[in-house]
Amino acid sequence: MKVGILGAGQLARMIALAGYPLGIDFIFLDPAKDACANTLGTHLHGDYDDPALLARLAEMSDVVTYEFENVPADVAHFLATHTEVHPSPNALAVAQDRLVEKNYFNSIGIPTPKFAPIESLDELSRAMETIGWPAIVKSRRMGYDGKGQAFVRTPEDLPKAWESMTGVPAIVEAFVPFDREVSIIAARSPQGEIAFYPLSENLHKGGILRVSECREADPMQAQAEDYVTRLLEGLDYAGVLALELFQVGGRLVANEFAPRVHNSGHWTIEGAETSQFENHLRAILSLPLGSTRPVGHPAMVNFIGGLPATAEALAVEHAHLHLYGKAPRKGRKVAHATIRAESRAQLSAQLKKLSDLAERVDDS
Amino acid sequence: MKVGILGAGQLARMIALAGYPLGIDFIFLDPAKDACANTLGTHLHGDYDDPALLARLAEMSDVVTYEFENVPADVAHFLATHTEVHPSPNALAVAQDRLVEKNYFNSIGIPTPKFAPIESLDELSRAMETIGWPAIVKSRRMGYDGKGQAFVRTPEDLPKAWESMTGVPAIVEAFVPFDREVSIIAARSPQGEIAFYPLSENLHKGGILRVSECREADPMQAQAEDYVTRLLEGLDYAGVLALELFQVGGRLVANEFAPRVHNSGHWTIEGAETSQFENHLRAILSLPLGSTRPVGHPAMVNFIGGLPATAEALAVEHAHLHLYGKAPRKGRKVAHATIRAESRAQLSAQLKKLSDLAERVDDS
Repeated sequence: MKVGILGAGQLARMIALAGYPLGIDFIFLDPAKDACANTLGTHLHGDYDDPALLARLAEMSDVVTYEFENVPADVAHFLATHTEVHPSPNALAVAQDRLVEKNYFNSIGIPTPKFAPIESLDELSRAMETIGWPAIVKSRRMGYDGKGQAFVRTPEDLPKAWESMTGVPAIVEAFVPFDREVSIIAARSPQGEIAFYPLSENLHKGGILRVSECREADPMQAQAEDYVTRLLEGLDYAGVLALELFQVGGRLVANEFAPRVHNSGHWTIEGAETSQFENHLRAILSLPLGSTRPVGHPAMVNFIGGLPATAEALAVEHAHLHLYGKAPRKGRKVAHATIRAESRAQLSAQLKKLSDLAERVDDS
Repeated sequence: MKVGILGAGQLARMIALAGYPLGIDFIFLDPAKDACANTLGTHLHGDYDDPALLARLAEMSDVVTYEFENVPADVAHFLATHTEVHPSPNALAVAQDRLVEKNYFNSIGIPTPKFAPIESLDELSRAMETIGWPAIVKSRRMGYDGKGQAFVRTPEDLPKAWESMTGVPAIVEAFVPFDREVSIIAARSPQGEIAFYPLSENLHKGGILRVSECREADPMQAQAEDYVTRLLEGLDYAGVLALELFQVGGRLVANEFAPRVHNSGHWTIEGAETSQFENHLRAILSLPLGSTRPVGHPAMVNFIGGLPATAEALAVEHAHLHLYGKAPRKGRKVAHATIRAESRAQLSAQLKKLSDLAERVDDS
C-alpha cells in the first residue's frame, strides 16, 4: 500500500512511523528540502501547487492525505480527481474558513460562541453590539497556534485589532470564560465505522498547546462524542479528526476542528491501544479501526523552541521522548514527550518534572 | 546521533523505527539491494567485508552495532579500531562459536547440557559414550533457526548426522528433556547499568520460534537474571542480549545467547514500557535505560513463510501487526503480531486466534 502525504513535517513523520509496521510505503510532497519526514519515504521536493508534482504524487499513491488543513481548494480537487483523497476536499473547505466552519457547526447542532463575520472596522464596531465584551477577532483563514488573532477588551482595542487582520476577511467571536479546554480525537472509516479516543484536556500558553492529558471516563465524554459524530457523519469524513471544545459549566462549546491527526492526540502513541496515527492510516485505507482504550494514565508535554538534553528527558521515569528532527527555533514545536503512568498520582508527579524541563528550554 | 548497523533486515528496521523518535539517524551496510530497513536511512550497498564500505560506515557513525552475530572477526575488529562498536568484537567471538560459547558459560557458572567437540565421525562415536542418548549434533558456527543441527537417537543415526555437518567442526550435546524453553532479554550500558525484561516463554516448531509469551513474576526470573548478569558483566557487554534457556524441573540450563535484539523480545514493542529496540539504542549510546515493566499481558506470534491479509490480522482485538516489508518465502520470518491483553484469559483467547491465522499461512 502506498500513501501520499501533502507535507513532510512531524505529523507526516509520525504517520509514517506508524505505517511502516503495516507495510505501507510513503510519498511526501513538501517544499522544504530538509522536511523532517523526508527520510521515511520518497520525497517529492517542490511546491504544493506544482501540477506536475501533484500528478506524480497522485499516480504514485493508492490514497493521498495531508498533515495540515490549509491545502488550497484547487489542489485538493485536482488530487481528488486523480486518486483517492482522505479526508475529502469538502472537509478541508469547511475547516479552513472559520466562518464556514462555525456556520457548519451550528447547522448540525453543535453550539459555538457567538460570532459575526467582519470585513471592515465599521462592521467590527457594529458586531460588538451583539457579541459582547471581551471578544476575539480572528482571520477567517490560515490561523494556527494563535496566529491571526487579536483580543479586544474595550472599544479602544478595535482599530488595532482590525489593523492586525491586514484587510483580510475575519470574524469576531465572543470570548468564552471556559472552565477548561478539551478536545476529542476520533477516526472514521469510509464504511462509517467510528472510534473515539477518551477526551484530551488541554493547556495552552501564548496560543500554543503545552500539555494534553488523557481523561478517561470524563463526564463530558458522551457530549463530545455526540458532537464529533455529527461532524464526522455530516462531512462523510474518512480519517482522524480533532474537535476542540471549551467547557463552560456542564456544557461544551465548539472552538474549531482539525481535519487531520492533532497535537492533542500525541499521547495516543504510547497511551492508547492504537495511536491516532495508526488509526488515521487504518481509516483512510478502509482497514478495521484499532481499539482506542487508554493504556495506563497518559499525558503529553510539548517542547517548544528548545530541546532538553536527551539523557535528561529519558531519565524521567515513564517518559517517552519524540524528537521531530527539526532545528530549534523560537516558538517552534520541536518535540514532545508522553508520560504513561501507573496511577493518577504518579502521572501528576512525573508530569510536573517533564513540564519543568519543557519550561526551562521554552523560549516562547 | 548517528548509528551504523551491519545488516538491514527486520531487526535493523525495528531498531531504526525505535530510534527515529530519539532523533537518531541510521546508516545500514547490507549486500541486499532491497533489504527491508534500507528506506529508513542511508543504505551502503555492498559486502560486509568490503574495507572501503566499512571505513565509510565507521566514519559516518558515532557508534556501530549489528543485527546478526555472524559478523567476521576481522570486520568487527576493523570497525572497533575506527569507531565505537557495541556489543564488542569479543562478545561476538564468544557467541558465534558454540564450543567457545558453552565453555564460556561453564567458566562463569552457567550450567549447560553436557557437550563435546567433534571433528570426525570417530570423535562423534566416542563422545556419545559420555554424552548419552539422544543428543544433537550442531555445527560450531553459522547455525540459526535450527539450521546446521541433526538429532541422533541411536548409533545408526551418527553417520548421517556427521555427514550433514559437511566436514565443519561441530559439537555434540545431550538432548535436554526440558519442561519449557524460556529466554531472558537484558540490556546493559557501558556504565554497567542493567535492565532485565520479564522472562519470555518460547514455543519453537521445526527449529523456528513461533510464539513468545511474557511471563511476569515467573518463579525462574531470579535464576535467569543471575545467569544473564554473569554473562553481561563477564563480557563487559553493552547493548541488548538474549539468553536462551531450557527449564528442567526447578533448574535452568543455558542453550545459547544472541548478542543482539532477539525475536523472543519482539513483544516488548507494545508489551513493555520501553522496547528492546529502544533499550538497545539507549544502551549503546550511554543513555539511561528505560523501564522494562510489562504493559498489560503481552505475547507475540511469528508469521513464517506467508502473510495474513492485513485486515484479517488487524481485526483480531488487541493485535498489533508488524510486517517486515519482505517477500514471503518458505520458512522465512516475514512478520509478527503482538497481543497486549487485559487479562491472562483474554491473552489465551486472542493468542489462539492469532496462532490459527499464523498456522494457516505458514508453509514451513
